[in-house]
Amino acid sequence: MKIITISREFGSGGRELGKRLADELGFVYYDREIISAIAEKYGLDEVYVENALDRPVVQSIPLNFRQSFTIPTVQIRVQVNLMLEQKRVLDEIVKAGKDCVIVGRNANILLIKENPLNLFVCADMDSKVRRCEERAPQGEHLSRRQLERKIREIDRNRARTRELVSGSKWGDPKQYHLVVNTSGWQIKELVPAVADYARRWFERTK
Amino acid sequence: MKIITISREFGSGGRELGKRLADELGFVYYDREIISAIAEKYGLDEVYVENALDRPVVQSIPLNFRQSFTIPTVQIRVQVNLMLEQKRVLDEIVKAGKDCVIVGRNANILLIKENPLNLFVCADMDSKVRRCEERAPQGEHLSRRQLERKIREIDRNRARTRELVSGSKWGDPKQYHLVVNTSGWQIKELVPAVADYARRWFERTK
Repeated sequence: MKIITISREFGSGGRELGKRLADELGFVYYDREIISAIAEKYGLDEVYVENALDRPVVQSIPLNFRQSFTIPTVQIRVQVNLMLEQKRVLDEIVKAGKDCVIVGRNANILLIKENPLNLFVCADMDSKVRRCEERAPQGEHLSRRQLERKIREIDRNRARTRELVSGSKWGDPKQYHLVVNTSGWQIKELVPAVADYARRWFERTK
Repeated sequence: MKIITISREFGSGGRELGKRLADELGFVYYDREIISAIAEKYGLDEVYVENALDRPVVQSIPLNFRQSFTIPTVQIRVQVNLMLEQKRVLDEIVKAGKDCVIVGRNANILLIKENPLNLFVCADMDSKVRRCEERAPQGEHLSRRQLERKIREIDRNRARTRELVSGSKWGDPKQYHLVVNTSGWQIKELVPAVADYARRWFERTK
């Protein structure tokens, strides 16, 4: 079974790269499906689940409060359960046995035993802002500065979740097999090169 | 003109990757030639030149000494001249106009106007130690701990030189177009995939 995991900076085009890569290679593509499965099982809203998984409260509590009575323990328990459920969904994906691309969800860490090909997708701030502007939901008009702040905040949260799950640093190139910088590129132009790299990687490791 | 620059961690196999990549693509390979050219022009020993360029004294002087009389100003002047000469040699390479691979020398920064494809090659410590052991000069018997220290020290110096030249961080994935992790691979196995990536990259940017 061949698994490609994609970790990405917000606005880098990592999700699009994952989708196109799956199409190019004939792999199944998992992204929102994982959130949906968890939300359904718990009868929770998808947005809530996603937020809880990407912004764990455990990390947002100042250290000196950790042992006081003010810790929202219920919320923590919910989040820990969601994270366990996330792992279970990933395990089910493995059990299904189909070659796949998984975007986000710290799949590179959680599925480490499956020996996935782990990609990190990044870009410079200019490219990320431009991509976010192009894809802004109708009605959203953020200034350049607001966009930059949003990008930094989302990435900070991803880094925290990553640390919580693995203890290792998010975006540290040594944690991935290949880091692709998409600055100045249309994602679709990059796909054939990355797909070739993946094919050769799996050829060697099979 | 197509230029590939390779920055690499010590022991990651970056130099071998550069050499093999040049062979595969039919590019000229520049590495020690640059040091040799500088050494010859100044009538200096190659090892001295290499050390001076990779370990600039400017960085090794504690800040509080910078304005005292103890600064070895002559040495600094020599090093600055060597760095300028390095840039001149790189400019000559560009003038020669041959597609090439350049290993080290901060070529990714110094030749930024030529729009090179910038690769960073890294590996986990285990792989780097193993590679260093395999290639140890006859008679060199370093313990695992000594090897790790050596690897860290060389990379620290590279990082400092990089900062001195560019102000930007060495090994920061966003400073490169592609980061290749060689952990667990024979370099020759990786070459075709990286070469394909390079071919597609140049196709797009020409």
